[in-house]
Amino acid sequence: MLVFVLHGPNLNLLGTREPDVYGTLTLDEINARLHDLARELGVEIECFQSNEEGELINILHAAARRAAGVVFNPGAFTHYSLALRDAVAAIGIPTVEVHLSNIHAREPFRRRSVIAAAAAGQISGLGIESYLLGLRAVVALARKRAGDGS
Amino acid sequence: MLVFVLHGPNLNLLGTREPDVYGTLTLDEINARLHDLARELGVEIECFQSNEEGELINILHAAARRAAGVVFNPGAFTHYSLALRDAVAAIGIPTVEVHLSNIHAREPFRRRSVIAAAAAGQISGLGIESYLLGLRAVVALARKRAGDGS
Amino acid sequence: MLVFVLHGPNLNLLGTREPDVYGTLTLDEINARLHDLARELGVEIECFQSNEEGELINILHAAARRAAGVVFNPGAFTHYSLALRDAVAAIGIPTVEVHLSNIHAREPFRRRSVIAAAAAGQISGLGIESYLLGLRAVVALARKRAGDGS
Amino acid sequence: MLVFVLHGPNLNLLGTREPDVYGTLTLDEINARLHDLARELGVEIECFQSNEEGELINILHAAARRAAGVVFNPGAFTHYSLALRDAVAAIGIPTVEVHLSNIHAREPFRRRSVIAAAAAGQISGLGIESYLLGLRAVVALARKRAGDGS
Amino acid sequence: MLVFVLHGPNLNLLGTREPDVYGTLTLDEINARLHDLARELGVEIECFQSNEEGELINILHAAARRAAGVVFNPGAFTHYSLALRDAVAAIGIPTVEVHLSNIHAREPFRRRSVIAAAAAGQISGLGIESYLLGLRAVVALARKRAGDGS
Amino acid sequence: MLVFVLHGPNLNLLGTREPDVYGTLTLDEINARLHDLARELGVEIECFQSNEEGELINILHAAARRAAGVVFNPGAFTHYSLALRDAVAAIGIPTVEVHLSNIHAREPFRRRSVIAAAAAGQISGLGIESYLLGLRAVVALARKRAGDGS
Amino acid sequence: MLVFVLHGPNLNLLGTREPDVYGTLTLDEINARLHDLARELGVEIECFQSNEEGELINILHAAARRAAGVVFNPGAFTHYSLALRDAVAAIGIPTVEVHLSNIHAREPFRRRSVIAAAAAGQISGLGIESYLLGLRAVVALARKRAGDGS
Amino acid sequence: MLVFVLHGPNLNLLGTREPDVYGTLTLDEINARLHDLARELGVEIECFQSNEEGELINILHAAARRAAGVVFNPGAFTHYSLALRDAVAAIGIPTVEVHLSNIHAREPFRRRSVIAAAAAGQISGLGIESYLLGLRAVVALARKRAGDGS
Amino acid sequence: MLVFVLHGPNLNLLGTREPDVYGTLTLDEINARLHDLARELGVEIECFQSNEEGELINILHAAARRAAGVVFNPGAFTHYSLALRDAVAAIGIPTVEVHLSNIHAREPFRRRSVIAAAAAGQISGLGIESYLLGLRAVVALARKRAGDGS
Amino acid sequence: MLVFVLHGPNLNLLGTREPDVYGTLTLDEINARLHDLARELGVEIECFQSNEEGELINILHAAARRAAGVVFNPGAFTHYSLALRDAVAAIGIPTVEVHLSNIHAREPFRRRSVIAAAAAGQISGLGIESYLLGLRAVVALARKRAGDGS
Amino acid sequence: MLVFVLHGPNLNLLGTREPDVYGTLTLDEINARLHDLARELGVEIECFQSNEEGELINILHAAARRAAGVVFNPGAFTHYSLALRDAVAAIGIPTVEVHLSNIHAREPFRRRSVIAAAAAGQISGLGIESYLLGLRAVVALARKRAGDGS
Amino acid sequence: MLVFVLHGPNLNLLGTREPDVYGTLTLDEINARLHDLARELGVEIECFQSNEEGELINILHAAARRAAGVVFNPGAFTHYSLALRDAVAAIGIPTVEVHLSNIHAREPFRRRSVIAAAAAGQISGLGIESYLLGLRAVVALARKRAGDGS
Repeated sequence: MLVFVLHGPNLNLLGTREPDVYGTLTLDEINARLHDLARELGVEIECFQSNEEGELINILHAAARRAAGVVFNPGAFTHYSLALRDAVAAIGIPTVEVHLSNIHAREPFRRRSVIAAAAAGQISGLGIESYLLGLRAVVALARKRAGDGS
Repeated sequence: MLVFVLHGPNLNLLGTREPDVYGTLTLDEINARLHDLARELGVEIECFQSNEEGELINILHAAARRAAGVVFNPGAFTHYSLALRDAVAAIGIPTVEVHLSNIHAREPFRRRSVIAAAAAGQISGLGIESYLLGLRAVVALARKRAGDGS
Repeated sequence: MLVFVLHGPNLNLLGTREPDVYGTLTLDEINARLHDLARELGVEIECFQSNEEGELINILHAAARRAAGVVFNPGAFTHYSLALRDAVAAIGIPTVEVHLSNIHAREPFRRRSVIAAAAAGQISGLGIESYLLGLRAVVALARKRAGDGS
Repeated sequence: MLVFVLHGPNLNLLGTREPDVYGTLTLDEINARLHDLARELGVEIECFQSNEEGELINILHAAARRAAGVVFNPGAFTHYSLALRDAVAAIGIPTVEVHLSNIHAREPFRRRSVIAAAAAGQISGLGIESYLLGLRAVVALARKRAGDGS
Repeated sequence: MLVFVLHGPNLNLLGTREPDVYGTLTLDEINARLHDLARELGVEIECFQSNEEGELINILHAAARRAAGVVFNPGAFTHYSLALRDAVAAIGIPTVEVHLSNIHAREPFRRRSVIAAAAAGQISGLGIESYLLGLRAVVALARKRAGDGS
Repeated sequence: MLVFVLHGPNLNLLGTREPDVYGTLTLDEINARLHDLARELGVEIECFQSNEEGELINILHAAARRAAGVVFNPGAFTHYSLALRDAVAAIGIPTVEVHLSNIHAREPFRRRSVIAAAAAGQISGLGIESYLLGLRAVVALARKRAGDGS
Repeated sequence: MLVFVLHGPNLNLLGTREPDVYGTLTLDEINARLHDLARELGVEIECFQSNEEGELINILHAAARRAAGVVFNPGAFTHYSLALRDAVAAIGIPTVEVHLSNIHAREPFRRRSVIAAAAAGQISGLGIESYLLGLRAVVALARKRAGDGS
Repeated sequence: MLVFVLHGPNLNLLGTREPDVYGTLTLDEINARLHDLARELGVEIECFQSNEEGELINILHAAARRAAGVVFNPGAFTHYSLALRDAVAAIGIPTVEVHLSNIHAREPFRRRSVIAAAAAGQISGLGIESYLLGLRAVVALARKRAGDGS
Repeated sequence: MLVFVLHGPNLNLLGTREPDVYGTLTLDEINARLHDLARELGVEIECFQSNEEGELINILHAAARRAAGVVFNPGAFTHYSLALRDAVAAIGIPTVEVHLSNIHAREPFRRRSVIAAAAAGQISGLGIESYLLGLRAVVALARKRAGDGS
Repeated sequence: MLVFVLHGPNLNLLGTREPDVYGTLTLDEINARLHDLARELGVEIECFQSNEEGELINILHAAARRAAGVVFNPGAFTHYSLALRDAVAAIGIPTVEVHLSNIHAREPFRRRSVIAAAAAGQISGLGIESYLLGLRAVVALARKRAGDGS
Repeated sequence: MLVFVLHGPNLNLLGTREPDVYGTLTLDEINARLHDLARELGVEIECFQSNEEGELINILHAAARRAAGVVFNPGAFTHYSLALRDAVAAIGIPTVEVHLSNIHAREPFRRRSVIAAAAAGQISGLGIESYLLGLRAVVALARKRAGDGS
Repeated sequence: MLVFVLHGPNLNLLGTREPDVYGTLTLDEINARLHDLARELGVEIECFQSNEEGELINILHAAARRAAGVVFNPGAFTHYSLALRDAVAAIGIPTVEVHLSNIHAREPFRRRSVIAAAAAGQISGLGIESYLLGLRAVVALARKRAGDGS
């Protein structure tokens, strides 16, 4: 079972950008921790980061062909990218939206996700745990789904 | 006379994506039908699809140099891409916005087009007919315009 | 196959009223062009104009009994007549909402149609072409519907 | 004691129009049931239906001259006809607004009645019972009023 | 010089309806006072009252053919009848909107006129003086207009 | 057949509290009138009053186990208690929301019921008749439901 | 009988400032026309102009001691000066709000008057006629008031 | 290490209430699964359910004295109970808000949590996994916190 | 003369909860200070704290029977408990709403009190002085009221 | 210790202006009562009234140089004078906003104070007691502040 | 060439007032720096500060007679003084609005300028540079204007 | 010292696109003028234009590594690209937002910048001067910053 992990805009700067908001872990460290957990759960993951909305859409489309689910941190696209919402709705595999920070405790414009309604669920505010729990959730959903289909 | 037909994000998935909303025709089938109609109307068309807002802007700019009009389905960009709106306003050739589904009968956020005010007109809800009528409209407008200039 | 063409309030003044917004064609000229196209498409049309909301509702009800579809320009009723919306929803035959001007590029109150969600689709901004394409659309929808039922 | 029963726009289509929303009873059947109840309550009723706002106002004005109260289903006018609201406020006899469907459980625009504040009360969601209870309410209010004045 | 005076819905009840809001003068008394002033100003007036939006539109259209201006109290249509707004905008003769009560001091929904922007001006809150001043204003505007055209 | 009658917060003060708004009947008198009507209709009722949202939820849960329907006046909870809304939606027996005063003619915050969409219907503005008609409505719905299930 | 005429901020620039909006008459010319009409009506007027909100309040307070009514063009203060509103409400003599331009046909922020609800009435859009009719209205109201008190 | 699991209003009906929204698991089954996971993680849990806002506040206060963190499903209180928000903010131990359903994909009023800003994070839409991941998150946060303090 | 002092939800945690917002005084210390002032003013007080909305309503009802006035800090209920508002309106004795913190300088949702309109007045932002001044205010109002009635 | 008492626009009319809203006390009587209380508290006061926003700002600036605190009734400026808000924020001495009437129980626009967030606190609805308690509050805050600095 | 520099309310306190927001430069130091730059640019400047809206309007009117442009920091009037907006629109010389702080990064009410639409442009957030660049901009615009007119 | 100049979507069309709004200068001419000024100020600049949001983010990230500041005209992205806002916030070097046209005097949607709050400041409405002053501002800020760090 393959799971895509998708990091949105500016997340390549993690660890250096506003560390009081986003923590000091780098994206590589997060990916490493995710690989560890993937091994523990018996699944494979592929990690992507892009600052381009269109490229993120393309990766989601690729996920539909190759993966069983997606862990997706859309970054600031969370709040306005209806094109990403439509992509998540279109691909038909479980997608869990994750956020490092508690978006509900920040500026008003960050409290609304236009993507969440198309995702299976949303996890926010738990730092790297948001990603790790997101991976657990996707695997659980994908396995249940695979089981349903058997 | 050359007309551009421009398909926005996620429309490459047509026929597989939410067929109850968007129908079962693929993008290739729509393009084929548009080519048939173009022949009937005595014009040429070129069809493009992109999931990237910037690329769509670039194609609109190219249309200003090469084409007499544009049939444009902006997909989810319809509802927030002011950059596409500005591109449509800038290019100075007739652009007709088209939608397969009736955007006025869907979620509230889909009822508002930020692009329509810059377009010549909008056609929605008629399935593939939206495209075909859109092509007829662009040709009519472009011919009238060419006639005005003669 | 009979199609009703329904013109709403103030459209009897077409050609004289605010010609920079609505053009210089009279209603009779529009109806004549529609008759030409109807012949070309092999259908019959009947054209009505009324400034009275209740009379428009009555004509829509009559359409349900006699016609296969409706081309409907609700004029200013577009923006508040929920009674017309309910009539369109009730009659169960394809209705296409048309507008001469681009309602999305005018005053904010004209950008919202309370009727569109009950119609099959909406065409706006294309002058007389809005009506002509609207007739094409209704005929296509009605024929598809007749075909489905056979 | 005479009570007017007033049915607003599109209610003439009852039984055929969107039966999942409005039920399968026809307007004649509802009127018959109301006549039965009127007999039981010892009052007379006259029933009217109109799709025209102005005609409904005229009937309300006539009610002020002839009747002791009104059972009024304003249909879609409920949500915008301030002219009907003023008519209800002006006539000075008990008017009870009734709705077959639960307007509070439908589209947002149907949840607001501009007329209710001028009526004595509102009953919604109970199908034909809305009318029957509405008649009981009007009779009770009118009798109490008559009693107060004696 | 002929001026139309147009009274909207429920104004036929003047003098009996909510006299604390609208005063005790009847519509006939108002019309009589207007005829007196018309004579003083050397103009003719014709007075109309209707509860039907469509009929009011028809009278406005007739005014465009026969009169030099209109004094118009749209009653509750003031707040939502965009069809009347379009009629006022279409007829191209000076129209002054008048209100007996001070609409700006009443319920919030009465503070907004959708018609005023299409009228030459608005006079409210001055009881019968609103009509009398309205007639003076229309005559002044129509004479200035006639003078401009000479 | 058993019906619960549920009175919400502050209704224990009826007859003493703001009698110009809520009338001079006490809660005991209302309950007595409801018992009379219940006898007439051949059903039993149990009446409850609580100022505690949680207790009202518990009684609704009990109703699901013991009763065939509920007449519910949620008092001020009407306007914000989504927990009561969920309880009404959960219990699966007909619940009719009733109000002594015309909530649509009072302060803006009282015009919105968050519970009504989960109830079968709503009756307001008719004083004690709101309760009596509410009981009639619940009995009618419950009997129809029992009949459907037989 | 003395009437105050009060001109608010920037009206000292009349005739030079945005003549397409406010006309070419100067303030002195308007005052002269008002003096002519005052003579015709048999009253005296005093004219004031100030760009200072506090000074306008002081003049309104003086009017309460010396004058029988006020013709008041609050200029841009119309849209936010609640202190002027309170002054108008406090002085207890008839005040008519006047505007040269049709405030309902301009920018959205100009369509709302926070003062109108405290005034006797409002006249807008009629150029210098707004002032002249305003003076007629104040005199009529003040004479009626004097008559009431006799 | 002790963790409180707190279930809000109507969750005692789980398994029977709207199973298409909330699933068929009962609350006891969820609690059993949570106990299994607690054992696996080496912590203890205590589970509470209440329909009373005040009782939930009291339990949160007790948690501050006895537990290291809270898994909290506030049910419908999520959307308006500012008192619960203040309790979560006051107790100073990690609280994770969980929801069985995807609140962002339901009615608009369910998309806003007034509590989330005071919680450490929020997990929604993942069915029983929301609870299980919530427990993992609380344990991770509490252990990190204990580690920070050592 | 007896005055009730009523502390709402979470105020039992005072002194420990968010001391930068609410100060370091405990509830007992506040009550002690209030008792001192009561002695000075020659009145008796009884102090209550509850986290339960329904219990607070019950205490307000008891106040109507036993006390001359109420000092009430509704805590977070300030912002949504319309049931408490109705209780304050119903009891007919002077109630002064008090807040330790300046609610107008905090989060937007804290700036609106749904209770204040039913109270005699509101005092906020002055720490323990809010309570002490609140007690002085209630005593002054109650004595004036008693004097009025003598 | 010197305290400024500042009365805003129209308060010079107190006792004569809308006595049902503002009471029958004159401003001189209020100032006399404040002088009595000042003597009792062992402080000096200076009282000012102005209808001019700019003059009120200048007095606040003077207070920063000469006084230990300010009791401020901004009158209608409360609701829009951001310049006064900035002045209160700038002067750095305790300012308590007071209102004779209960601004939360009046027109919607009076419920919002743009100044309160910059003040130490707000007292409203208690008639002259609002001023007297305001003086007590300022003295208490200023003494605490002086004590902190000693 | 003469340029006016206009400082609005509370700016006389610069350097002492909230230095973390507005910096430690005094107004005199800013004016001195502006004089230096004026010399460098070969223009003269006159600097004014006032806390009174009316006086600022008067100075703007004077600028129209004497100066070639205005650098204007309207302080808090930025957000509501439509009278100043009208003055800027009326004077017909280039006016550049400047702000020391970044108004777009502060409280929501500071993000909206009602004056900017009437100004030539706006510069904010750059501390004293906002003024210096503002002077450069005004000189450039005035010279271009003078050049256009030559 | 190196400064990046960043031009957003559609700015490549400058000089040809809507010249009445954006002027007749081409982008090359603007860049040339900026190079002249850079030489005068003793700094280097690099100029970029892109229609792709993601590419603009990448360039901003590069600026953080290579440049001392950024002059940024985000074009239509100004109004919705929260991803660009986050990039500006993340890079930690002075960024000044510039606009050729006065965005505050155009359509409502153009008046709001979602980026400005993350930038050091904003300059709009001054044509090419907006860029030139923007460059001056960035250099001043960067030099001050370099000075602070020395």
